[in-house]
Amino acid sequence: MLVKNLISCKPPHLLRCFSTLEPPRVLRTGDVLRHRRVYSSEDIVEYSQVSHDSNPLHFDAESAKKAGFEDRLVHGMLVAALYPRIISSHFPGTVYVSQSLHFRSPVYVGDIILGEVQAINIRENKKSYIVKFSTKCVKNDSKILVLDGEAMAILPTLAMEQVESSAAV
Amino acid sequence: MLVKNLISCKPPHLLRCFSTLEPPRVLRTGDVLRHRRVYSSEDIVEYSQVSHDSNPLHFDAESAKKAGFEDRLVHGMLVAALYPRIISSHFPGTVYVSQSLHFRSPVYVGDIILGEVQAINIRENKKSYIVKFSTKCVKNDSKILVLDGEAMAILPTLAMEQVESSAAV
Repeated sequence: MLVKNLISCKPPHLLRCFSTLEPPRVLRTGDVLRHRRVYSSEDIVEYSQVSHDSNPLHFDAESAKKAGFEDRLVHGMLVAALYPRIISSHFPGTVYVSQSLHFRSPVYVGDIILGEVQAINIRENKKSYIVKFSTKCVKNDSKILVLDGEAMAILPTLAMEQVESSAAV
Repeated sequence: MLVKNLISCKPPHLLRCFSTLEPPRVLRTGDVLRHRRVYSSEDIVEYSQVSHDSNPLHFDAESAKKAGFEDRLVHGMLVAALYPRIISSHFPGTVYVSQSLHFRSPVYVGDIILGEVQAINIRENKKSYIVKFSTKCVKNDSKILVLDGEAMAILPTLAMEQVESSAAV
């Protein structure tokens, strides 16, 4: 069946449908990597347990409303964790150097969050690459900005691993 | 027994030994809040599960050594979570506005990490307070800087809740 499909995929661009035959994609300035995630109540509980952050804004809707929000909040630092997740899933072995975070809008349970990192500067350094990314999260397929900033990371290679549900554009 | 102790604590400064009698401590510019934590292998596994960050640097000592480290690393963003944890434990209902993070040295399982936030600017805003903190983590009771930066947060009050194992100095 695989052989038959290979034969049927004669035009070179169609070979891209087989991940095993896909050539390594190399990160270039301007490339954007994305990942979409929806946070659950269980995520809040689990993150609170491991971070020891039990701010009532994350557990008590009344406290959150008193502070001007619609409902209890997903921890901002959990949402921020999308960035190293996106980068290191494409470049395993990545070492994080810095990250700036500006929390612009609340994230609620059930919101669809799209995290994006864009390579804005790539510099070779010995056998690795120092890459500066602009980073942002938007929610619910709209232009509501949740979180923005910049990251700097050391990548062991620019050859990108293909990751399900993420895309370089 | 409590009554006896109360009576024996006649000089006003000794009353501070009873937390129930302690007046609310109010945050002032220059105050430092601290929290000490040691990360375990289980913390790495739990954080990886909730953040979906499974960079091999956190699980495979060989990958970490290849990248120039002594052993596998605790996730930097988990260490960074100390800051909102420290601030919101003293000021429940705190809303995070921004955080900058510069990862200076690796954190390994078993390292004793001391997180510190220092109030460097306090501004009243309607019925809340916008506070700028310098933030840092050092390790193993030495001067090895692990992580530094700044945070901005909106506190609902400057009256500080007393938290075990933390101290304002």
